[in-house]
Amino acid sequence: MSAADLSRFSINQMTVKQLSLPELADACAELGVTNVGLWREPVQAYGLDATAKLVRDAGLTVTTLCRGGFLTAIEPAERATALEDNRRAVDEAATLGTDTLVLVSGGLPAGSKDLHGARERIAYALGELGPYAESRGVKLAIEPLHPMYASDRCVVSTLTQALDLAERFPAHQVGVTVDTYHIWWDDRAPEQIARAGAGGRIHTFQLADWTTPLPEGVLNGRGQIGDGAIDMREWKGYVEAAGYAGAIEVELFNDGLWARDGREVLTETARRFVENVM
Amino acid sequence: MSAADLSRFSINQMTVKQLSLPELADACAELGVTNVGLWREPVQAYGLDATAKLVRDAGLTVTTLCRGGFLTAIEPAERATALEDNRRAVDEAATLGTDTLVLVSGGLPAGSKDLHGARERIAYALGELGPYAESRGVKLAIEPLHPMYASDRCVVSTLTQALDLAERFPAHQVGVTVDTYHIWWDDRAPEQIARAGAGGRIHTFQLADWTTPLPEGVLNGRGQIGDGAIDMREWKGYVEAAGYAGAIEVELFNDGLWARDGREVLTETARRFVENVM
Repeated sequence: MSAADLSRFSINQMTVKQLSLPELADACAELGVTNVGLWREPVQAYGLDATAKLVRDAGLTVTTLCRGGFLTAIEPAERATALEDNRRAVDEAATLGTDTLVLVSGGLPAGSKDLHGARERIAYALGELGPYAESRGVKLAIEPLHPMYASDRCVVSTLTQALDLAERFPAHQVGVTVDTYHIWWDDRAPEQIARAGAGGRIHTFQLADWTTPLPEGVLNGRGQIGDGAIDMREWKGYVEAAGYAGAIEVELFNDGLWARDGREVLTETARRFVENVM
Repeated sequence: MSAADLSRFSINQMTVKQLSLPELADACAELGVTNVGLWREPVQAYGLDATAKLVRDAGLTVTTLCRGGFLTAIEPAERATALEDNRRAVDEAATLGTDTLVLVSGGLPAGSKDLHGARERIAYALGELGPYAESRGVKLAIEPLHPMYASDRCVVSTLTQALDLAERFPAHQVGVTVDTYHIWWDDRAPEQIARAGAGGRIHTFQLADWTTPLPEGVLNGRGQIGDGAIDMREWKGYVEAAGYAGAIEVELFNDGLWARDGREVLTETARRFVENVM
């Protein structure tokens, strides 16, 4: 694998969560990987400033911070807490030097059956968070999650819904995350990628493959690139035709990958990226 | 529960698959349930003609037969076998006295990543099967399945896609199945129900509730009515506003329900129907 092959590759930290941040930085240096997507929890555990220094010293670009969101609560106190937590996430993104905070919107509050109302509360929260994010040089990237997460994780299930929300705000405040795992089944997604690109709202592009059978709870069965049903070059073609030329993050939640040696998984993931995406 | 409360209720056989067909007929008589949805495999096991006589003698209306479909194969021999099997399913529906055969379209063939091509092969098969079904007095009801089944079970994931297919054919040949479990997350589904109703294409309406966590394989976790995230009266309102006045089938695949006494589950399901739907 040449540096040119990997210049757009970004390894999302979750894919190799068995690696500590220093181990991840070392493994990236060895392979020639220059981009990483980070998660708040391991960053906080290692220390925000220490992580910022680590990635800076290693010459790594932080392509996204995952994740803010969870903005569907009804109770005022819970809503205030969620907004404050998201402002902190914006601050963390700025400190880490990334301009993109990925948002997972949140599921239905306990006992609620009102998807529409939950989506409207997200819109209200975006109106609060967008200007704050802009003031810190950070863009919010609403991530539609697969409809199988609609009740308990994310009431925004399609790119169409994500853009319907994002377009109420300026593009430099609110855009979308395009992740193949969540949208590959949707025949309307290609036209929505074009819509997002025309509006300058593709804030990140992430990959995971679709493999079955899904595991219990359906969280940790995202397939290694090339193992599943998704034609990665086809989706890369859609985002590129829509003007996206940024990093391409591979973000896999997969118990099988997590049980293996992290450096080996990183090497395999980089190779699969070159074989199936570039 | 009065007979009026249950007049539109249909118990899909799969909900209480632990009951034999005679046990199901007895339990329905005791409760005042007059409608059943049947499945091909248990009907074949009991005998097609014997089942037809059993339901006729019991005064039961067969609201649907589940299921035909699986029409996405590429190889000519496999395609011919699938078409022949679907013609037999049409014959079985006619013998049982139902005018509706539910179709589950089929997933991606092994190794294929081409959802569009698979959907086109379904259209071709519908062109073959529609006139045959009409000649037997049977309507085909394409069932969009939740997008989590797109790769391995059904490449038709939304009502929009199902109607895009159905509308290539006359409504008395091909329509759709509206099942809350598969479409509840989709904010475009209400307008698509209106579209289906305007075209006379709502061939059956089925209910299951959405509960989490999903079990491994995501097949047998359909929630009892009232246990989950779906507002059943809202969806009943959509199909009624679209002109549907037929039976409402409750079809649950649920390991927990199957482990219990079948009569008890039937009684509970009828009660939940009255409480949450009527």
